[in-house]
Amino acid sequence: MATPTTTGRNPDDEGVLLVEGTDRPGLVHAITGVLTRHGANIVSLDQHNDGIEGGSFFQRAVFRIDGFVAERPAIEADLESTLGTGLGLTWRLADRTPKRVAILASTSDHCLLDLLWRQRRGEIAMTVPMVISNHTAVADDVRSFGIPFLHVPSQGPDKSAAEARIIELLRGNVDLVVLARYMQILSSGFLAEIGVPVINIHHSFLPAFIGAAPYRKAKERGVKLIGATAHYVTEDLDEGPIIEQDVARAGHADDAAELQRRGANVERGVLARAVMWHCQDRVIRHGRETIVFQP
Amino acid sequence: MATPTTTGRNPDDEGVLLVEGTDRPGLVHAITGVLTRHGANIVSLDQHNDGIEGGSFFQRAVFRIDGFVAERPAIEADLESTLGTGLGLTWRLADRTPKRVAILASTSDHCLLDLLWRQRRGEIAMTVPMVISNHTAVADDVRSFGIPFLHVPSQGPDKSAAEARIIELLRGNVDLVVLARYMQILSSGFLAEIGVPVINIHHSFLPAFIGAAPYRKAKERGVKLIGATAHYVTEDLDEGPIIEQDVARAGHADDAAELQRRGANVERGVLARAVMWHCQDRVIRHGRETIVFQP
Amino acid sequence: MATPTTTGRNPDDEGVLLVEGTDRPGLVHAITGVLTRHGANIVSLDQHNDGIEGGSFFQRAVFRIDGFVAERPAIEADLESTLGTGLGLTWRLADRTPKRVAILASTSDHCLLDLLWRQRRGEIAMTVPMVISNHTAVADDVRSFGIPFLHVPSQGPDKSAAEARIIELLRGNVDLVVLARYMQILSSGFLAEIGVPVINIHHSFLPAFIGAAPYRKAKERGVKLIGATAHYVTEDLDEGPIIEQDVARAGHADDAAELQRRGANVERGVLARAVMWHCQDRVIRHGRETIVFQP
Amino acid sequence: MATPTTTGRNPDDEGVLLVEGTDRPGLVHAITGVLTRHGANIVSLDQHNDGIEGGSFFQRAVFRIDGFVAERPAIEADLESTLGTGLGLTWRLADRTPKRVAILASTSDHCLLDLLWRQRRGEIAMTVPMVISNHTAVADDVRSFGIPFLHVPSQGPDKSAAEARIIELLRGNVDLVVLARYMQILSSGFLAEIGVPVINIHHSFLPAFIGAAPYRKAKERGVKLIGATAHYVTEDLDEGPIIEQDVARAGHADDAAELQRRGANVERGVLARAVMWHCQDRVIRHGRETIVFQP
Repeated sequence: MATPTTTGRNPDDEGVLLVEGTDRPGLVHAITGVLTRHGANIVSLDQHNDGIEGGSFFQRAVFRIDGFVAERPAIEADLESTLGTGLGLTWRLADRTPKRVAILASTSDHCLLDLLWRQRRGEIAMTVPMVISNHTAVADDVRSFGIPFLHVPSQGPDKSAAEARIIELLRGNVDLVVLARYMQILSSGFLAEIGVPVINIHHSFLPAFIGAAPYRKAKERGVKLIGATAHYVTEDLDEGPIIEQDVARAGHADDAAELQRRGANVERGVLARAVMWHCQDRVIRHGRETIVFQP
Repeated sequence: MATPTTTGRNPDDEGVLLVEGTDRPGLVHAITGVLTRHGANIVSLDQHNDGIEGGSFFQRAVFRIDGFVAERPAIEADLESTLGTGLGLTWRLADRTPKRVAILASTSDHCLLDLLWRQRRGEIAMTVPMVISNHTAVADDVRSFGIPFLHVPSQGPDKSAAEARIIELLRGNVDLVVLARYMQILSSGFLAEIGVPVINIHHSFLPAFIGAAPYRKAKERGVKLIGATAHYVTEDLDEGPIIEQDVARAGHADDAAELQRRGANVERGVLARAVMWHCQDRVIRHGRETIVFQP
Repeated sequence: MATPTTTGRNPDDEGVLLVEGTDRPGLVHAITGVLTRHGANIVSLDQHNDGIEGGSFFQRAVFRIDGFVAERPAIEADLESTLGTGLGLTWRLADRTPKRVAILASTSDHCLLDLLWRQRRGEIAMTVPMVISNHTAVADDVRSFGIPFLHVPSQGPDKSAAEARIIELLRGNVDLVVLARYMQILSSGFLAEIGVPVINIHHSFLPAFIGAAPYRKAKERGVKLIGATAHYVTEDLDEGPIIEQDVARAGHADDAAELQRRGANVERGVLARAVMWHCQDRVIRHGRETIVFQP
Repeated sequence: MATPTTTGRNPDDEGVLLVEGTDRPGLVHAITGVLTRHGANIVSLDQHNDGIEGGSFFQRAVFRIDGFVAERPAIEADLESTLGTGLGLTWRLADRTPKRVAILASTSDHCLLDLLWRQRRGEIAMTVPMVISNHTAVADDVRSFGIPFLHVPSQGPDKSAAEARIIELLRGNVDLVVLARYMQILSSGFLAEIGVPVINIHHSFLPAFIGAAPYRKAKERGVKLIGATAHYVTEDLDEGPIIEQDVARAGHADDAAELQRRGANVERGVLARAVMWHCQDRVIRHGRETIVFQP
């Protein structure tokens, strides 16, 4: 199965090539040369460098090749010899197979349901093999989408058993883990073992209001905008590379409950865009930052 | 001279009443009773409490009274006996005389010129008796608006002579001081002596990126939105009550110069709104927060 | 059952008073006088006139009275004699009982599900006694919320039988009808008979792109923003009083499908706000316009 | 003179190549091949097609070549033979010389001054050889920037003399004409003779409220957002290809004067972005639409 493309043509014939490395003259020409040699038609290409001679180079290309699936090993060999060995660039080739995304949730449903709706509508190029929660509040909702719900309790300070159980469930089965207001801190051991990217939604405009209870802190500080931040999870809590952020207005008459309601709306929009862009292979992690080739 | 009202009627007949205090039943009726006794027609009234029995009450009313100027002392006496002595409320009565606003600037012109231009267009109900700068870069621009420019250098670590000179120029002559990217920290002594509110524009979305070089910090952290914050100046740097905030998108391809350019646009808009609302008596300071009765 | 208030106090004790009419001095004082006589504490009050002597006056007050339910008939008699007979004003008193809202849908689910989900979360002060659709696509989703789904087919040009069936189901049972992308034009006879307000979501920024296929028209015209509009339904298609509008950016690379996806997001947000504000008695219809007392 | 680049390197070495035509495999590779042959380093490249086999292809590349000025004729010859004759593509090569932009204004200053400020700050890569107005209201402001102001009255229904005078002043001297609220309709003869693009700012969210007095119409229709549109001027009034649009909120309490004030703010922002993007060679006109390669 593959996600729809913009053209109605066979999505199996469409690929995405992401490249990064040290900039030098001739890179776009060399990279498109590989694609052209293999009969690709480039649908869109977005490239930029950071403007410094010998600085960083980033490129995303969406292309079409009749029979891409069959041709793929030859293309990869060519990319590795030309870009990898030859030019010292890092590259990644993706096809349009939907990413397998596990969602970890807790008791709140807004981010979770929004992702499941958008998945069902075909807005996000993903399948959801399972939803895992440390509570059971969202079980029925998840199952009404025909998606398995698994309950992994994580009471107490020692989360190692719960994490081991989650690893057991996910390893090899998913391409991405999304924390949809999971509210549990994952250990660095978990992150190392899981082996796929993890995206979190933080309910504040990071780096403002790091840590717990950001809406209460926002209310106390009297800010006029509240926000939400989707980021890759790293060992440093709330410090991972930011993928997307957005804000909503907050007035003096809005109590903490109203901020939370308005914030929930921002959270689900921000997380959905971050997951959608990740699943479209639009994001490159680069140190503490992300490069997002926006639509 | 007075600012135009929405009706074309005599602006001298228009007043604004701000009231705050402990909530209890009957306050709006009692307050409007005073105004009605003096023949007022209420143009707009905005009131809210924080929803707690015995919590805080805030109200702003714009009203019209034929011959308000003559009637004012009688109204004030009535307000004091009814609201002040009687109900223990704090009140402030303002007429539509434009506020006298001194602007302190440094070398950058975007916030300064935007304020002067909006003043000239009649968008902000203020007069600008003088602009003071520690540099001379903006002198010609200021004078082209017919506004006095005064140069008060402030080299070196000891700012006391410069501050004393500014106090000398401003005391008694202004109702508000606006720091339009002044880039100098004012001492608590200055704030105490100046005796009028001081509004500053900070070039970040506070409380994120407190302190110097926020655009560089924003770039390093990889945020996807940059912002600006207008706030009253208190002794605690970057901690004063926030009046207004706004943001603009930032992408990976935007270098620090582009962030600064886009941020400058946000800064001037945020500062203009904050000054406009202050001059329309729409803002009540309440602890670390502001109540802004927005248009 | 009643909706939660901001305070945790008994929602049965909370009421909303909407007043409109010809402006004259003393109205706010007279209106709050009635409320105060009956022991009300005013939580928030928002009033404005259109700035013209003898122009229009609009006011919304939220108040609390211990034992409001018991006191209500006496308050209404007092309002009628003081405001109605006495001052020639139009008034409406609402309690915090959730509005009964029927939703009419077709095959698309985004606006419908967003409303049902916000209702379940307690974000919108409504109950949904039934969802009616001319298709069956959304039946399972609706029932998963525990809400009755009724199928009323409406093939063919003559919609009178379908409309009669809907009237039969709704009359007396609902306070509001919401068209959540219903895609059927309702006859003026239906609107007259149904006897309650009807809110529609139009998938364009009205008055641009009136009529069918607005996203295609937007693409053809090359606009850089697409929008959505929630409005009360009147006999004149797409001409009813607008409650809320919003927009999203559209770029040259976005095809019609992407505009539709991005637009769907705007549509559900705009419709949810319009329904929420209506259910909070924040909206007064005034000729071709609405007065929305925004939170 | 040339505009600053992001790197501090010689701006004379930087160029922009815009290409459009019928899509086919191998175009990006062929185009970058020409640039690479001439020693270019590509700073950024943005390409897309409309997703249809044999559809349209659009590309913008910013590149650097040491000694670009000297090399330019050879590059152009190569582009013409490879892209023009060889592949049937339309191409345009631009250097970083600031565009020469004449501004036509009337009595209102907001769009005009914003452009002049941004030009002086170096935000827009343009020079302004002259400002022409049919009134004299803005003369002093313009001259305070050191820019010539020319008064060309255009009373009466026959504008041909005024247009002839403007043509005389501008022909050969400018690369772009900007109508900064000029409020005069230009004849198709003028547009044909002037020979350079003309950008206009329309004070509504086109295609809503075409024609005169859009703020009044917006107020009457009761819209909740007002907007502005920058577009290339064509013979069909208000129908030219749209470059940029934006909106601001409008409430029931905002009278026509307030809408105009808020709208003026949107207008100047929209026009500034449109002119900036045009001057950065980011815009391709394509039938009724524009392709804008956004930063």
